[in-house]
Amino acid sequence: MKARPMPEEEKSEAPRDESLENYTIGDYLLDRLAELGLTELFGVPGDFNLHFLDHVVAHRSIRWVGSANELNAGYSADGYARIRGIGAFLTTYGVGELSAINAVAGSYAESVPVVQIVGAPPKETQASGRKIHHSLGDGDFKHFLRMAEEVTCAHADLDAATATWEIDRVLRDVVFRRRPGYLMLAADVAEVAAYPPSEPLTTDLPVTTPRAVAAFEEAVRGFLPGRRTAVLADLLVHRLGATEELASFLTECQLPFATLAWGKTLVDESDPNFVGIYAGAASQDRVREVIEGADALITLGVEYTDNTTAGFSMDLDPARMIDVSRFGARVGDEVFTPISLQDALAVLHRVTTELDDVAPMPAAQAPAEGTPREPSDDPLTQDGLWSVLASQLESGNIVAADQGTSYFGMASHRFPAKSTFIGQPMWGSIGYTLPAIIGAGLADPSRRPVLLIGDGSAQLTIQEMGVMIREKLPVVVVLVNNNGYTVERAIHGPDEVYNDIAPWRWELVPSLFGAAEEDYLYRRATTESELLAACKDAVHDREKLAFIEAITDRDDIPQLLQDVANALKR
Amino acid sequence: MKARPMPEEEKSEAPRDESLENYTIGDYLLDRLAELGLTELFGVPGDFNLHFLDHVVAHRSIRWVGSANELNAGYSADGYARIRGIGAFLTTYGVGELSAINAVAGSYAESVPVVQIVGAPPKETQASGRKIHHSLGDGDFKHFLRMAEEVTCAHADLDAATATWEIDRVLRDVVFRRRPGYLMLAADVAEVAAYPPSEPLTTDLPVTTPRAVAAFEEAVRGFLPGRRTAVLADLLVHRLGATEELASFLTECQLPFATLAWGKTLVDESDPNFVGIYAGAASQDRVREVIEGADALITLGVEYTDNTTAGFSMDLDPARMIDVSRFGARVGDEVFTPISLQDALAVLHRVTTELDDVAPMPAAQAPAEGTPREPSDDPLTQDGLWSVLASQLESGNIVAADQGTSYFGMASHRFPAKSTFIGQPMWGSIGYTLPAIIGAGLADPSRRPVLLIGDGSAQLTIQEMGVMIREKLPVVVVLVNNNGYTVERAIHGPDEVYNDIAPWRWELVPSLFGAAEEDYLYRRATTESELLAACKDAVHDREKLAFIEAITDRDDIPQLLQDVANALKR
Repeated sequence: MKARPMPEEEKSEAPRDESLENYTIGDYLLDRLAELGLTELFGVPGDFNLHFLDHVVAHRSIRWVGSANELNAGYSADGYARIRGIGAFLTTYGVGELSAINAVAGSYAESVPVVQIVGAPPKETQASGRKIHHSLGDGDFKHFLRMAEEVTCAHADLDAATATWEIDRVLRDVVFRRRPGYLMLAADVAEVAAYPPSEPLTTDLPVTTPRAVAAFEEAVRGFLPGRRTAVLADLLVHRLGATEELASFLTECQLPFATLAWGKTLVDESDPNFVGIYAGAASQDRVREVIEGADALITLGVEYTDNTTAGFSMDLDPARMIDVSRFGARVGDEVFTPISLQDALAVLHRVTTELDDVAPMPAAQAPAEGTPREPSDDPLTQDGLWSVLASQLESGNIVAADQGTSYFGMASHRFPAKSTFIGQPMWGSIGYTLPAIIGAGLADPSRRPVLLIGDGSAQLTIQEMGVMIREKLPVVVVLVNNNGYTVERAIHGPDEVYNDIAPWRWELVPSLFGAAEEDYLYRRATTESELLAACKDAVHDREKLAFIEAITDRDDIPQLLQDVANALKR
Repeated sequence: MKARPMPEEEKSEAPRDESLENYTIGDYLLDRLAELGLTELFGVPGDFNLHFLDHVVAHRSIRWVGSANELNAGYSADGYARIRGIGAFLTTYGVGELSAINAVAGSYAESVPVVQIVGAPPKETQASGRKIHHSLGDGDFKHFLRMAEEVTCAHADLDAATATWEIDRVLRDVVFRRRPGYLMLAADVAEVAAYPPSEPLTTDLPVTTPRAVAAFEEAVRGFLPGRRTAVLADLLVHRLGATEELASFLTECQLPFATLAWGKTLVDESDPNFVGIYAGAASQDRVREVIEGADALITLGVEYTDNTTAGFSMDLDPARMIDVSRFGARVGDEVFTPISLQDALAVLHRVTTELDDVAPMPAAQAPAEGTPREPSDDPLTQDGLWSVLASQLESGNIVAADQGTSYFGMASHRFPAKSTFIGQPMWGSIGYTLPAIIGAGLADPSRRPVLLIGDGSAQLTIQEMGVMIREKLPVVVVLVNNNGYTVERAIHGPDEVYNDIAPWRWELVPSLFGAAEEDYLYRRATTESELLAACKDAVHDREKLAFIEAITDRDDIPQLLQDVANALKR
């Protein structure tokens, strides 16, 4: 059986050359992924994907990165996709894919384009309906496909005759919609002969209608004049690939701007017009005044979530807003669609620079974050911890902060230009960042990765330290040891046993997971001075893994987390 | 809002006493679980289950056992249920439940009664359709319920007015059908007032029709005389609670018997009539001759899977068989239903002891396994490893063997009486046994737990060592260090990089995960002599965790695994 991705005429004009003798559907999939920019494939081997793995290791540009378990593979692919624009991972059927499905759901919630490839039993074996291992034993081999449907934007149970077409469809959807996709690849289907793609995959579907743009522009020109204006941007600008357009707009329009925490580092936080992170009622006063007080607020790719708005506590008046979202825009209560975010941004860029009477919303004086105070020798506090770390960040850093004190503690600090902040405020799966920073680090080896994670979270995914070490990634790991789930203590049960965890000896982590003495440095920081010294050592030893164990009090909670937790309490 | 589980009259007759002032739907659920025999609840806290957790820690007979992550919680609950007859674990919504769903699917495939409780956002929050963390952000809060439906036998999104009824329905199904169940418990629903159950939960539904039994007995009486007879039993006998009935039948009928590997230790393997493990074409000759050569083969609760039959290679003639399954029996091609397994066993017991002319199928002389040879000082082989370990097992041991060389290496060895073998030949999720042995050990603290696991598998779930140590479980851990996924090498790609893993320093495991020097012993075994000495030390120090790192060659593969792998290759 052969797939026939090309019409009969073309085939005779372009006879298969010798090197394509063994070209398979599996190769086609890998070539398409490579074309989209993928060079690392994460995953765990299993009996239904071993033959496909032969093609992976033989691929000219894709490298296999074996993960310690499947959930971690999914997390790594997600971190990778956030930096590279596409990520993928491979598991076996049933046991493997279900172990990872929480990562896939997270990619959906956080709008990350990840492809999950599942090696499945051969079609004939499935058709037999027998009790095959890794199945439920009821003869139904579609249970897990149906489960994947709930958390992916596109999915296919690949069949030899239509596989290449279906691969293209799923990959196009993944890239265009920035959501995960699922490919069930039966072991025999992967081996079926195919032809390589002859045309690049079109992933950029047209969105905009010019008449909608014209009407939007007219409305904007009527709306902005005389209004004190500010800009609030969020995650979707990044996900829809309009980060550069946003940057040039912000540079030229000279309006004050903020992001929500979900979109942190989407903008240049060292720009004097950056006022900070907007978080509804939990915002710093200065940010809140600018965003909620503006006569015209331009919101770009903003999605309000309970965690980023302290329980939807924003006080915003749609009548005073221009909102640009995925496929359309709004001026006051008037809707203009279809318009792509890029095209709407171009309109805003043009209008704000052409009009003379678009006034920036005035912002209060920025707090003097620039003056570093002397590090203290008192026991380390959450406050001191994040201040010292923020002061030591460098341009280019990729910082993953786990959804606990790390995320909330770091989100309110100003980041250097060209740095990236990775978190999961929507999905909020603790432990995510440890494998994710591996993916992010491999996606761009020129940037130093930084991992901020609490002891409670690190326990969930600690085995991935072995991969971090095997891959020689010079991550700066800051392990916040505060004796359990402090993020949960903030919400409920501060002294309850269920917020305790098993006590570990964190200093053994690098060694157990395979690091040689000369390949890492370990520092324990109990004061700001010790933390600062540790950071400086880490910066000095750029090629090494740095594992910093920072000790803070069990009940010490960052202010933003406390505000959000209070809002989430019933 | 109050649930009203009792009619109005009864309520006035039985006024709530003071102690019931704060009795809630959550308490009702816990009381029902306690009634079914549960004393440990596994899980991970999360913001949507914290209030319910207050009721857990306050419960008079249920204890909270915090797990390192949710998948491990699910595995622990599964191991617990295999010994205790019921298991349960608690996670939060979305991130937590999906992390564990592979364990739930495993409980389904392996027929284990586990209840998954998921703390969900309050009903009102769900109804708002807003972007709540731990959801996909699309306003649909039923995605994960629908996913759970695929891998559970019963499920409910609990509503205050019907919650107690629904709890009873799901728990009854779980116990009766020996499959997992799912309860979505919104944070507010858990807190609604309720009344404790007044009647015990009926979980034993009637199955048998006496006329079917009579017809079956007549058919058996006509079938058996003059035939050389053998018995093959499997897992379902255990799952349906008929282990004791089977034991007494086997003791009195004096017929030769075997089990499949799935049902290993279901029978007393020290009984001289026990011939071994039947595995189709991969069986030892003696076992195969008895099972396939019998003129009458009585199969009890047998399910043939690819892994336990070397790819369905059994050579059995239905015309010569009496088969008893979950709800009915078969004599040759005649079907008798409904009959419970217990009732069918009673018939077989009666008939075989009453009739004079039921002949046991003769078995060849058992190999002289009793004569222990001198342990070797050569490098440890798989063969030597399992022989030495098998020789050191004690009555009462609970042995969990991970689905790799451990499972296949150990399955063919004879176990002492009253010991239990735990594996997952159907679901085959590597890493499962490490958390599962914790559950099994807590389910019966009078029995010494033994864990047999390879380095490739242990990486997936290693963090649960922290819980094993915190709970002071004196597990004998035998970590087979053979440099990667040897089980996969047996199937495909013996030298491929994808079957390699990150190299760890296993000797640091107990210490990193919190064991004090005096609480554990570590031994490294590179020869049979060293292994034997390590085992003797472990047996001597009954109260301590024993961590034995056994070194075998990367490419050394147990015979049974090789046979099965050959059968599974395409």
